[in-house]
Amino acid sequence: MINSRKLKIFNDPIYGFITIPNGLIFDLIGHPYFQRLRRISQMGLSYLVYPGAHHTRFHHALGSMHLMQKALQVLKYKGVDITEEEEEGLCCAILLHDIGHGPFSHAMEHSIVESTDHEYISLQFMHALNEIFDGRLSMAISIFKGQYEKRFLNQLVSSQLDMDRLDYLKRDSFYTGVAEGNINSERLITMLNVVGGNLVVEEKGIYSVEKFLMARRFMYWQVYLHKTGIVAEQLLIRILKRAKEIMGEGQVIVCSDALRFFMEHRIEKENFDLKILNIFSKLDDVDVLGAIKSWQDHDDFILSKLCEMLINRWFLKVKLKNSPIADTVFQKHTSRVREKYTLTESEAAYFVFKGVIENRAYDRHHQNINILRKNKKLIDVAKASDQLNLKALSKTVTKYYICYPKDSV
Amino acid sequence: MINSRKLKIFNDPIYGFITIPNGLIFDLIGHPYFQRLRRISQMGLSYLVYPGAHHTRFHHALGSMHLMQKALQVLKYKGVDITEEEEEGLCCAILLHDIGHGPFSHAMEHSIVESTDHEYISLQFMHALNEIFDGRLSMAISIFKGQYEKRFLNQLVSSQLDMDRLDYLKRDSFYTGVAEGNINSERLITMLNVVGGNLVVEEKGIYSVEKFLMARRFMYWQVYLHKTGIVAEQLLIRILKRAKEIMGEGQVIVCSDALRFFMEHRIEKENFDLKILNIFSKLDDVDVLGAIKSWQDHDDFILSKLCEMLINRWFLKVKLKNSPIADTVFQKHTSRVREKYTLTESEAAYFVFKGVIENRAYDRHHQNINILRKNKKLIDVAKASDQLNLKALSKTVTKYYICYPKDSV
Amino acid sequence: MINSRKLKIFNDPIYGFITIPNGLIFDLIGHPYFQRLRRISQMGLSYLVYPGAHHTRFHHALGSMHLMQKALQVLKYKGVDITEEEEEGLCCAILLHDIGHGPFSHAMEHSIVESTDHEYISLQFMHALNEIFDGRLSMAISIFKGQYEKRFLNQLVSSQLDMDRLDYLKRDSFYTGVAEGNINSERLITMLNVVGGNLVVEEKGIYSVEKFLMARRFMYWQVYLHKTGIVAEQLLIRILKRAKEIMGEGQVIVCSDALRFFMEHRIEKENFDLKILNIFSKLDDVDVLGAIKSWQDHDDFILSKLCEMLINRWFLKVKLKNSPIADTVFQKHTSRVREKYTLTESEAAYFVFKGVIENRAYDRHHQNINILRKNKKLIDVAKASDQLNLKALSKTVTKYYICYPKDSV
Amino acid sequence: MINSRKLKIFNDPIYGFITIPNGLIFDLIGHPYFQRLRRISQMGLSYLVYPGAHHTRFHHALGSMHLMQKALQVLKYKGVDITEEEEEGLCCAILLHDIGHGPFSHAMEHSIVESTDHEYISLQFMHALNEIFDGRLSMAISIFKGQYEKRFLNQLVSSQLDMDRLDYLKRDSFYTGVAEGNINSERLITMLNVVGGNLVVEEKGIYSVEKFLMARRFMYWQVYLHKTGIVAEQLLIRILKRAKEIMGEGQVIVCSDALRFFMEHRIEKENFDLKILNIFSKLDDVDVLGAIKSWQDHDDFILSKLCEMLINRWFLKVKLKNSPIADTVFQKHTSRVREKYTLTESEAAYFVFKGVIENRAYDRHHQNINILRKNKKLIDVAKASDQLNLKALSKTVTKYYICYPKDSV
Repeated sequence: MINSRKLKIFNDPIYGFITIPNGLIFDLIGHPYFQRLRRISQMGLSYLVYPGAHHTRFHHALGSMHLMQKALQVLKYKGVDITEEEEEGLCCAILLHDIGHGPFSHAMEHSIVESTDHEYISLQFMHALNEIFDGRLSMAISIFKGQYEKRFLNQLVSSQLDMDRLDYLKRDSFYTGVAEGNINSERLITMLNVVGGNLVVEEKGIYSVEKFLMARRFMYWQVYLHKTGIVAEQLLIRILKRAKEIMGEGQVIVCSDALRFFMEHRIEKENFDLKILNIFSKLDDVDVLGAIKSWQDHDDFILSKLCEMLINRWFLKVKLKNSPIADTVFQKHTSRVREKYTLTESEAAYFVFKGVIENRAYDRHHQNINILRKNKKLIDVAKASDQLNLKALSKTVTKYYICYPKDSV
Repeated sequence: MINSRKLKIFNDPIYGFITIPNGLIFDLIGHPYFQRLRRISQMGLSYLVYPGAHHTRFHHALGSMHLMQKALQVLKYKGVDITEEEEEGLCCAILLHDIGHGPFSHAMEHSIVESTDHEYISLQFMHALNEIFDGRLSMAISIFKGQYEKRFLNQLVSSQLDMDRLDYLKRDSFYTGVAEGNINSERLITMLNVVGGNLVVEEKGIYSVEKFLMARRFMYWQVYLHKTGIVAEQLLIRILKRAKEIMGEGQVIVCSDALRFFMEHRIEKENFDLKILNIFSKLDDVDVLGAIKSWQDHDDFILSKLCEMLINRWFLKVKLKNSPIADTVFQKHTSRVREKYTLTESEAAYFVFKGVIENRAYDRHHQNINILRKNKKLIDVAKASDQLNLKALSKTVTKYYICYPKDSV
Repeated sequence: MINSRKLKIFNDPIYGFITIPNGLIFDLIGHPYFQRLRRISQMGLSYLVYPGAHHTRFHHALGSMHLMQKALQVLKYKGVDITEEEEEGLCCAILLHDIGHGPFSHAMEHSIVESTDHEYISLQFMHALNEIFDGRLSMAISIFKGQYEKRFLNQLVSSQLDMDRLDYLKRDSFYTGVAEGNINSERLITMLNVVGGNLVVEEKGIYSVEKFLMARRFMYWQVYLHKTGIVAEQLLIRILKRAKEIMGEGQVIVCSDALRFFMEHRIEKENFDLKILNIFSKLDDVDVLGAIKSWQDHDDFILSKLCEMLINRWFLKVKLKNSPIADTVFQKHTSRVREKYTLTESEAAYFVFKGVIENRAYDRHHQNINILRKNKKLIDVAKASDQLNLKALSKTVTKYYICYPKDSV
Repeated sequence: MINSRKLKIFNDPIYGFITIPNGLIFDLIGHPYFQRLRRISQMGLSYLVYPGAHHTRFHHALGSMHLMQKALQVLKYKGVDITEEEEEGLCCAILLHDIGHGPFSHAMEHSIVESTDHEYISLQFMHALNEIFDGRLSMAISIFKGQYEKRFLNQLVSSQLDMDRLDYLKRDSFYTGVAEGNINSERLITMLNVVGGNLVVEEKGIYSVEKFLMARRFMYWQVYLHKTGIVAEQLLIRILKRAKEIMGEGQVIVCSDALRFFMEHRIEKENFDLKILNIFSKLDDVDVLGAIKSWQDHDDFILSKLCEMLINRWFLKVKLKNSPIADTVFQKHTSRVREKYTLTESEAAYFVFKGVIENRAYDRHHQNINILRKNKKLIDVAKASDQLNLKALSKTVTKYYICYPKDSV
């Protein structure tokens, strides 16, 4: 007789292979709700800055689950009690943790769904899938919501050192080719432990944690908040805003049914039911890019101009400063644009605008990282670090930007 | 005074950095014709098999140009005479060699543009760009067409060991995570030389050439001709065929203007003018995926069913055989599908079909690889190889497949 | 309470981490017999050709054990019955499979120990360690000797696809920087299975097996049998031969006690007892290199000259041919050397010599690789391969070399 | 005619290939002075902690030269004026910058050569080679000594961001498998520029510089100052001290002539002439390891015991603390050891000892890193960094250790 339990694997350029642990996970991956993530880019418009950054939320979800399996192996080896049911719950929870992301999440969260974060929508997807899979996701939901008694299970899904971050930093660094963001996820995982029900890092892992926080900060300033990426995102936000305005005026505008629905209706947590979830599940990058491509030919000058800019990468100029942009500078560019294109002040605001970006590498107040000393005491990593002033990393850094057309100077 | 000539670089996960050699190249990359390649996936639907395979033709074109710069360095070091003008021409030619690819080329070449290969369209793009850039692409065009006197320049762009292949094999291997296809492009390049005006490989490179041919064959069978990828591609072909039929019957069908144009008109080499080139330049993966997504809800059973299958990865079952599929088998599946869905024979053919795939790793008759022996004589690699029967690699291998719905058995 | 079972890990540039599965393995690694492998280079003198090739047999043994753990995971997942005792035995067997290697094995096997291969000495070490560890190595010994009933356990340690090869090809490729030899060990392992008690490869692994055989062949010709490496090895053989001659004449010669012992005594399988094992365990690269360094100043012209050549990399010229070296050529070089240095014919033979190297990538008669077809039948890989003439790889390839001083021409 | 200028390349696992720029460099590499670096490990005894760390100073020197070539390309592209003669000088200077290292430098600098740093000895080697190569190293020497007018040339060889550091951090990280130390040397190099004759980093490189400083600090604490490495190094220091004592008492002690010379003579800068340089050039890791291996059997209990410990990795226990070791603790261990082995206090000091280690990641007072802002002003990196308190990295961190036999507690 031949041994026939089949090993289901996905190829992954980063980990080599990702093994699917069981049939439930296999079926979840096969569901259209999850397959949709194949059409949602993990890094939104960043590929306009880093041409390799076309990886998807689908792949990231698989990668996070892979790291979760590694973490489970390590913790169980160290004697942490984790049942098979909890294990399956954890794998489902991490697999589905980002399923609620819409296309270009960061840019679109106020255009598409009002005051509803992607975690909330992820949860709605989990509930819907739980119906379909006869309650087998109840444990995953309980862990995901932080209601399950073993706190460290939730912390593996959602905390400063969760498997989500350990995968996305590594993955984004890999695909962008920004080697400085490459973290040693595997080493960090070998140093995890559980004390008093909470996830901690063993003392010898302290330099790795610091390195992780530094890499995260590096990726923020170098990649996620890259000034060219900001222009792209702001253009997208303004495109959707303008399109809504035009729709509001009753003009015809071409786009997919799913996109139209969310542009015409005001959706909030309160009215986000299964019907809306199913429309949401039809929406992905293709809808948004398709609309923008076709809007390049729209009659409205502002809409077509903005779309042309985004599609052809004819970006606005952007300046990044450590202090707020002077109002005179802003006015100067606004006047020039108004004059050049004969625009009202509110119309000019589509092409000249300013804003603020901020980032904090380590948030010790909301979610801290605990180091387990050899004397068995716990200590916050910012205190444990001998030299690096991690308190500095806890400060919020703020930068200011202004965007305006290149030829307006 | 500060030294201010700026180094323009692109991040690349494979080579680290890709440097832009001069302003002309920089401007070509910035042109909408070239930016469009950002929206055309290098490997079409292969991401449905290898979830990492989302890299674009844009990135591949940059990568090929990077390797070309390396090859130029090596050849010039060895004393091969190459002028600056030729160098620029080569870099332009390799950058633009694939600009004529449409979305999902392999699947769509008969649906979109009749009997017009992508090389021909690339050439039309080059001519159009040559107008825009005041004739600075004339050398590139001459090299690309194989009309320039130094034959090895064309061979660097288009031959069994051209920079195109050296990049795409490495890149596709990298992004799919199929390590076996990883070739040592850099080593192969250091072993290039020119003899009698032709590109040759020095003798010590023989094992690397063999390795390259093996890797190429590996990628064909494991990746490019992967049976699941074949189903996906065949579904796409049938979707476009069905959509054309429906259009032909005068029914309404939603899609982008550019896609509609090519579905409604029969375009051939003869009528491929600048106006058509400009419509073609609007067409990319977004148009095709957007159409398929919306056609899921079309009234036509066949069209909507095929689209649903492709979007949700509910694929047909596929069997790959070394001998032709028996007609009885084909008939059995056809009958079952006809019965199940109440279809005519020609309708059933959308769901049950068979076909042939073939591949030859090394084509010594059309384009051979010459090895430069230490005694200064040239010899074909298939003869130079001491052990491996490269003649075997020259044989065409044929496989036969049949596809049918999973539940039809 | 804190979970305190400690994870013992070694850093490995290739796999990231190597985890030590249990206390017995940890103690075996700590034993001086095994620590000695830290002072034995895996690739002998190859670092004179590939400057990165300084990795040791110590690291290779750990790497092989790491792969064994992966293979065990895969096979158990697929339902192959393997007990915990067998698992420990396998890990011990692979860890110790090469412990009998002396310094520069290939060069020295006839100088140090007559007609005693390293497998035999490995077995002696295992027996000695079995005494020390109270019989816990009995299972490992039984597997290693091929006496254990489950044949596939031995095949994991010693066959065409054993964990030894899967590690050393990958490791040697990594450290030499010869990327073409890089095999996808992990993928091959996921495709292993057991049928009828024998290790087999599942059908979809066929291209990987071919790639592995090609990589192996590549490494042989490009690295292991590199002509400069051959000169180095032949110099070493002649140095030891000359030193023995000089000793035989009663002259003083400086070297370590352990090295002296093996140069003065004729050791064979029959007299290889524990006392000799312990002397052997003192012998490593340091003894040999130390001797050669000091012999550079020996009075004997031949010995000092050969040692100088090896230490300073003043190598003999080497020519590699597909047909035997003509006697006239050999005589010509011999005469010149005799004349130049006033040497007898037998003395000249230290500087002018010829030889034969041969390699066969796949030996289907002694140890074949079985492919498990989807129809559950087994077939030899050379037959299963659709295109590549693997029979060609089964042929022995022979090359001929001649070495002579550069200035003798 | 065939183009025949040969490309001399070395394989390198890190950069792929290292190209030798010209015949002089090729000949320098071939000289026995330089070939000796093949027998000197870059990281001394660190392989006892990180089993992959067997790379040599030979390979590091080649790697540094490779990066220098990259830096020259970048700077010349940006318009920095560098003559061909300066280029050759720079390549020679970086190639030879470490040639004065003896075996296990850090451990042996007080045992072998008194108050003579390796830079001084490197310079003596350069002078000797300059004689041999007819003055072609004069420029290299002038740059190396910091006497050449263009200061940035010296800074490329010796400063906080020199090619030496950019290679060794990357290389040591690679071979140890400690991924956190992996720096993006290539990216840093693309951001170099020259202002006012000094090497600076362009503003957008600021995060990379921070990352580099963090990686350096990481490598110090995790690798270079790893507590097990400290024990090994301290054992080596004590072994040589004890051997000298024994020699001083007139006892016979076996070792190579070169090692004996430096143990018997007090060598200082003043008497370091060509004769001594030549003896020094015979000394490498083999001499030291060979001596220690043979001293395991010496009659002296202390010497043989220490040697056994080092060879078999039977290390002393080591504790690392943030505050000085209490004298009572030290006394307790000393008494136990004295009692157990019947030793005098000064003899016990060979087995029980304490010490201090310190490190500062960034030394802004001696050698700072200047950032070139977009407004063309220079600013110290510690000030330019918006968030990370690099001043913290400028602080010296001190740790205290104590070592004692495991069984003495």
